[in-house]
Amino acid sequence: MTLASIDAIEGVKRPRIAIEAVTPTVDGGRFPVKTIVGRDLVVEADVFADGHEVLKADVLWRPLGGEWRRSPMAYVINDRWRGILTPDAIGRHEFVVEAWWDDFGTFRRDLTKKREAGLDVRLETDEGLLLLEGIAAQAPADAARTLADFILAARAADVPTRVAELLSPEAHAAAVAADPRAFASRSEIFGVEVERVQAEFASWYELFPRSESGDPTKHGAFRDVVKRLPMIRDMGFDVLYFPPIHPIGTSNRKGPNNTLTPGPTDVGSPYAIGSPEGGHDALHPELGSIEDFRALVQAAKEHGLEIALDFAIQCSPDHPWLKEHPGWFKWRPDGSMKYAENPPKKYQDIVNVDFYGPDAVPGLWIGLRDVVLFWASEGVKTFRVDNPHTKPFPFWEWMIAEVKAKHPDAIFLSEAFTRPKVMYRLAKVGYSQSYTYFTWRNTKHEMAEYLTELTTTAPKDFFRPHFFVNTPDINPYFLQTSGRPGFLIRAALATTLSGLWGMYNGFEICESAPLPGKEEYLDSEKYEIRIRNWNQPGNIISEITRLNRIRKQNPALQTHLGVTFYNCFDDQILLYGKSRPKADGTGVEDMILTFVSLDPHGEKHAAYEIPLWEFGLPDDGTVAVEDLMRGNRFTLTGKSQWIYVNPAEMPFHVWRLTNLPGASA
Amino acid sequence: MTLASIDAIEGVKRPRIAIEAVTPTVDGGRFPVKTIVGRDLVVEADVFADGHEVLKADVLWRPLGGEWRRSPMAYVINDRWRGILTPDAIGRHEFVVEAWWDDFGTFRRDLTKKREAGLDVRLETDEGLLLLEGIAAQAPADAARTLADFILAARAADVPTRVAELLSPEAHAAAVAADPRAFASRSEIFGVEVERVQAEFASWYELFPRSESGDPTKHGAFRDVVKRLPMIRDMGFDVLYFPPIHPIGTSNRKGPNNTLTPGPTDVGSPYAIGSPEGGHDALHPELGSIEDFRALVQAAKEHGLEIALDFAIQCSPDHPWLKEHPGWFKWRPDGSMKYAENPPKKYQDIVNVDFYGPDAVPGLWIGLRDVVLFWASEGVKTFRVDNPHTKPFPFWEWMIAEVKAKHPDAIFLSEAFTRPKVMYRLAKVGYSQSYTYFTWRNTKHEMAEYLTELTTTAPKDFFRPHFFVNTPDINPYFLQTSGRPGFLIRAALATTLSGLWGMYNGFEICESAPLPGKEEYLDSEKYEIRIRNWNQPGNIISEITRLNRIRKQNPALQTHLGVTFYNCFDDQILLYGKSRPKADGTGVEDMILTFVSLDPHGEKHAAYEIPLWEFGLPDDGTVAVEDLMRGNRFTLTGKSQWIYVNPAEMPFHVWRLTNLPGASA
Repeated sequence: MTLASIDAIEGVKRPRIAIEAVTPTVDGGRFPVKTIVGRDLVVEADVFADGHEVLKADVLWRPLGGEWRRSPMAYVINDRWRGILTPDAIGRHEFVVEAWWDDFGTFRRDLTKKREAGLDVRLETDEGLLLLEGIAAQAPADAARTLADFILAARAADVPTRVAELLSPEAHAAAVAADPRAFASRSEIFGVEVERVQAEFASWYELFPRSESGDPTKHGAFRDVVKRLPMIRDMGFDVLYFPPIHPIGTSNRKGPNNTLTPGPTDVGSPYAIGSPEGGHDALHPELGSIEDFRALVQAAKEHGLEIALDFAIQCSPDHPWLKEHPGWFKWRPDGSMKYAENPPKKYQDIVNVDFYGPDAVPGLWIGLRDVVLFWASEGVKTFRVDNPHTKPFPFWEWMIAEVKAKHPDAIFLSEAFTRPKVMYRLAKVGYSQSYTYFTWRNTKHEMAEYLTELTTTAPKDFFRPHFFVNTPDINPYFLQTSGRPGFLIRAALATTLSGLWGMYNGFEICESAPLPGKEEYLDSEKYEIRIRNWNQPGNIISEITRLNRIRKQNPALQTHLGVTFYNCFDDQILLYGKSRPKADGTGVEDMILTFVSLDPHGEKHAAYEIPLWEFGLPDDGTVAVEDLMRGNRFTLTGKSQWIYVNPAEMPFHVWRLTNLPGASA
Repeated sequence: MTLASIDAIEGVKRPRIAIEAVTPTVDGGRFPVKTIVGRDLVVEADVFADGHEVLKADVLWRPLGGEWRRSPMAYVINDRWRGILTPDAIGRHEFVVEAWWDDFGTFRRDLTKKREAGLDVRLETDEGLLLLEGIAAQAPADAARTLADFILAARAADVPTRVAELLSPEAHAAAVAADPRAFASRSEIFGVEVERVQAEFASWYELFPRSESGDPTKHGAFRDVVKRLPMIRDMGFDVLYFPPIHPIGTSNRKGPNNTLTPGPTDVGSPYAIGSPEGGHDALHPELGSIEDFRALVQAAKEHGLEIALDFAIQCSPDHPWLKEHPGWFKWRPDGSMKYAENPPKKYQDIVNVDFYGPDAVPGLWIGLRDVVLFWASEGVKTFRVDNPHTKPFPFWEWMIAEVKAKHPDAIFLSEAFTRPKVMYRLAKVGYSQSYTYFTWRNTKHEMAEYLTELTTTAPKDFFRPHFFVNTPDINPYFLQTSGRPGFLIRAALATTLSGLWGMYNGFEICESAPLPGKEEYLDSEKYEIRIRNWNQPGNIISEITRLNRIRKQNPALQTHLGVTFYNCFDDQILLYGKSRPKADGTGVEDMILTFVSLDPHGEKHAAYEIPLWEFGLPDDGTVAVEDLMRGNRFTLTGKSQWIYVNPAEMPFHVWRLTNLPGASA
C-alpha cells in the first residue's frame, strides 16, 4: 500500500450508479422549480452504471418536512429515465431521484435468454435461489418468510419447474417486496415551489380607488370601489389591483403631469408613501378606515375577486420611519437625503431606504416583512412589488420565504423592467410572476422569439410572465396611434399567449392620449383624480369579456407554456396554437388556434397551414373548428388554407380545433 | 418580530451580488474541466446585483493547495463577464469567480456625469472624501496613509480642484490599492485538470511486440521493437502502444481466428493475462526481461517516442490472483467461474474480477492501482485501458486520482465503445482521452454532426476524442472495400480533425482482409504472430509522414477544438477549417482548410465557398493559399470557387490560408 488505503474505502463508497442531468432544476438546485398544485411535474434523469445489469429508478418526493412518496421512473431512450409526481398541496416540496441495481431483474433477464437459447440452466437456477436467499437475509420478516417458502419449494422441484417458478410473477413480486436496492444511489435533493393556480392563471384589473367617486372634485373611497366590483367581475377579471393606498406625503408633492408645483388641492402621487398619519401599514384617510378596507376585501371575495396591493419600498420625506429609524436611510453630509431616481425618471417626492445601513439589519428587513404580514393578515395574499430590482436579492429571498412560511398562498408579482438576467433572478429568489417586455414586442418575429425564450429555455421552469397591456407608467407607443383595433390586438395577444394578463383601467375605453413624445399618459392618474365614462362609444368591454370567458373555458390558455407558432404566410399575421395533450400521449385533445394581425390598419388575406399533424391527421385530413369569438362552427379539410382578417371588424380569430366527432386520429 | 429575527441576519449574509452560469464547468462543478498546460482558459460568468452601482470581478485560481492568483474579468455584454487564466504547471487546479461593489468607481462615474451636466457638486465632493475615509479605515497601513494624505490635501482645495483630484488616476489607484471589496461574493470553486500537451495532441502507433522478429516462426521480443523505433519515429508518431505484454494463460487458450482449439505452438491472446509466471506486473518471458523492457523504454525516449501500455483488468484462469485472492472473483455454486463476455463477443480464455466481492474492498482496488503505479515507476506514463465501461466509475475516479497524485503526467485512454453517456462519464471521472465512434462515421452529415457535438456541446470541456483509424479489434467495413484511397481518406480525416489520432500497424500498407462478413481482421494478430513487409507497393507511409508533419507545424491541428464546417456543394466532399485566432481578437492568424472526398472511387468537381469572412475579407477578397501536401502556393480571389479531387491521386487537400502579405484585413 503505497498510498493511504483509507482512500480506497472512501472511493468505494461513491455511488456506483451515475445519476446526471436531472430536470427540471434551476441553477443546479440552488433555487426551486415552480409549478401549480395538481399539475403533473415530469422529472427526468440520466441513470446508468458500469456493465449491463438491469437498473431501476424512482423519483421520491414530499412536501418539506413531510413523508416521502415514490413514483416509479421508466426508461425512455439513451439512458434517460422519466417519472411523474403530482403535488396535491401548495407549499415548498422537494424531490430526489433514486436508482438501484435490480439483481433479481438481471437474473430473470439472463435466465430467460438462456432458456430461449435452449441451454442447460441448472446451475443458473442454483444461482437464482442463492440470490433470493441473499435478498431474504436483508428483508423485513414478512417478505423474508414469503421468499423462504418460495426457495424451499423451488429447491425441491426439478429444473424446468424451478425455471418456471423463478420466472413467475409471484417470484418477481416477492423479490420486489424484499428488494434491498443494491448500490442504491441518490441525486441531490431539488426544490419545487408549488403554488395555487392564480400564480399562473389570473386576469388582473388595475384602478386607483381615489378616482372612483364619479365626481372629479371628490376623492374616491373604498366604498366607491365596492360599487364597481360587479362590472369588473362581469368582464371576467379575477384580481383587482390598487396602486398604494397609504397616506401620501406633502413634502415635494407632485402636481398634475409630474410637475413640481402642486396646488393646494392636488392629491400627489400615491407612491410618495407616508405622512404624519402613518406609513406602509396605514390607510390614506380619504380612502376610508380599516373597516372600510375590510368591507371591500370581503365584498370582492363575494364577487369572486381577489384584492392585490402594491408593495412599494420607498418613503415620502414625511414618512414616520425617517424620525423613528433614521438609521434605515442614507443621509448626506449636510443632513439632507437624495431623492429616488430610476433613470431617466426622477422621483423628487420620495427617498429610498438603505438595506445595509448602520441600523437597518435586521430592523428594516423585519419592519418591511411585517408590513407584508400585516396586509396578509387583513386577507390580502397578492402583492405587486414596485421596482424590486433596485432592492437586494437576499432581502427578497428571505422576505418572501418568511411570508410564505405563514401564508403559503401568498403571490408576489415583480415589477422589474430591467435587464433580463436581473428579472430572471428575481423570479428565482421567490417572485411568482413578473412583468415582462411584452409591451414592447410588436412585430411577428419579436413576439415569437420572446415567447419561445420564455416557454422553451431555462426560464420556463421558474419565470411566469404577466402580460400587462398597459400600466399607469406605460402608455405604449403602439396604442397611441393604433386606434381601437390596436387595443383589440394587444388584448388578444395578452389573453391567449399568457396565463397571466392585466390591464390598467382606461384600456377598455381605448384611452391613449400621451404626454407628447413620451410613453406616458397625458393627465396621468398617478398625479390626479380621473373620472371616466365606461360606456363611451367604441369601448371594447364586450371583447374583453369574451376573451376572459374563453380563457376560463379552455385550460390550454391558462398558462404561457405549450405555445407553438405555425406558418402563416403574411409578415404581420401571428399564428399560434396551444393544446392539451391527450392522457394516453397519442396527440392532442384540442387546440386553441389564434390568428392575430399585428397591423391595426389594413385588411389581410393570407395563406396558412392548419396544423393537422398535431391531431395525427394527414395533410388532406379534416378538423372541426369552433370560432370562439363569433360562436359559429365549421370544418376545414387540407393543410393549406386561407385566412381573412379585417381589423375594422376584429383584428384576430380565436378558434378551438378538435378531431371530427367519430373520427379516429 | 413575528418570526425568528435571527433569520433576518442569516438572510442578510447571503451574497448581494449574483454570480451565475459560470463557464467552463462540468456537471455544476462535480467534475473538473480539462485543459492543457500553457493554454488560455477563458472563464465567464453572469455577474450582477440590485441597483446601478459599478461592479468589479476577478477570477481567482491556483494549483490545488497553492497560492491564489487573480485575473481581472471584463464586462462583455448582457451582464456577462470574462477573464482568462493560463496555468503554467500540470496537475489539478481550481478557480473561483469573485465580484464586489466598486464604491469609489460608482462615485467617480456619477461625479463625472454631474460635472458634465454643469451641476453644483460641492456636496458630492464631501461625499467622495467621506467615502475615501471609510475605505482608508479598513485598508492596510500603507494604502491608508496614501489615502489620508490625499484626503487632507483635497479638503484644503476649492471645489473644482477637489473634483479634478477625485477624478485623477492617482485617486483611482489609491482607492484600488485600498479597496475593501464591499459586498464581495464568490462563486463555488470549480476544478480544472491541467495536463501535459500529449493529453490532447499526440499521434499513436500500435504494434504487437511478438510480431517484430521478422520471422513468422520466431516470437518477437522487446529488442526487436527497438530496431523498429526509427521507422515509426520517421513517420512522425509520438506514442508507441502495445497490447498487453504480460504472461499469457494456457487454460482455454484461443487458437488462430478466435478458435477454441489451439495447437501446441499457438501463442494465444495477450489479453488472457496471467500464468504461473506472473500476472499484471510481470512480463511475458518470450518478450524479454525487465531489463530488456527498460532498455526499450529508454531507446524510445531517445527517439522522442513514449511507450503506452495496455491496462486490461481481467485474468486468465491461470493468473496467480485466483489462488492468492479468491475473494476478488465471483465463483459459481459449483466452484467454477463465468468467463468474460462483451456481447456478442465471448472471451472464453479470461475471467473478470468482482470489484465489490467479499474480499475485494479495498484489496483488489489497491492491487490494481499498484499495478499501474508499478509500470509508472518503470517510466510508462500513458495507459490505454481495456473496456473501462464494464468496471465501476468510482474505481476509476479513485484510481486515476491516486496515480495522478504521484504521477501528474499520467495519461489514461478509455477504450469504451458503448453508449455516449457512459463514455462521457468515464472522461468526467478522470480519463484524459477516449476512443470514439469516429470509425463508424462515414458520411458527410454524420461526420459534421459528430464533430459538432464533440466541439460545441458539453463534452468540449472534458472529453478528448482519440481518432483511431483501425484497431486489432476493428477492421472497418469501409476500408474492406475502399482500396488505398479509403486509407488515405481516413488518415486525412483523423489527422486533421482531432489532436489525437492513432493507427494499428498494417494500416500503412492498407491491410484489410476481413474475417468474412465481420468487422474483424482475417488471421487476427490478437491470436497469432504476423510478419509484414512495410515497404510493399501501394503503402501510404509517405502520406502519413507528411500528415504528421503538417500536424506538428500547425497548432490549429493540435486539438479537436475549433473546427468549423463550410459549404462545399457536393454530398461527398467534407470541407472544414481550423484557425488560430489573432492575439488582438480581430480575426484569424491563419486557417488550415481541409477538403476530404468521402468517396474513394470517383473524381469530384464541386463548387465551394472559401471562408474569406473569417479573415475579415469581403466576398471579392483574396487569400494566399499554401497546399501543404503538394507544397505549391497560389492565391484565390472571390468567395465562390471550384475544387477538383481525384481519389486515385489523392482524395483530399490540406491548405494553409493566410492574408496576403501586406494586406490589411
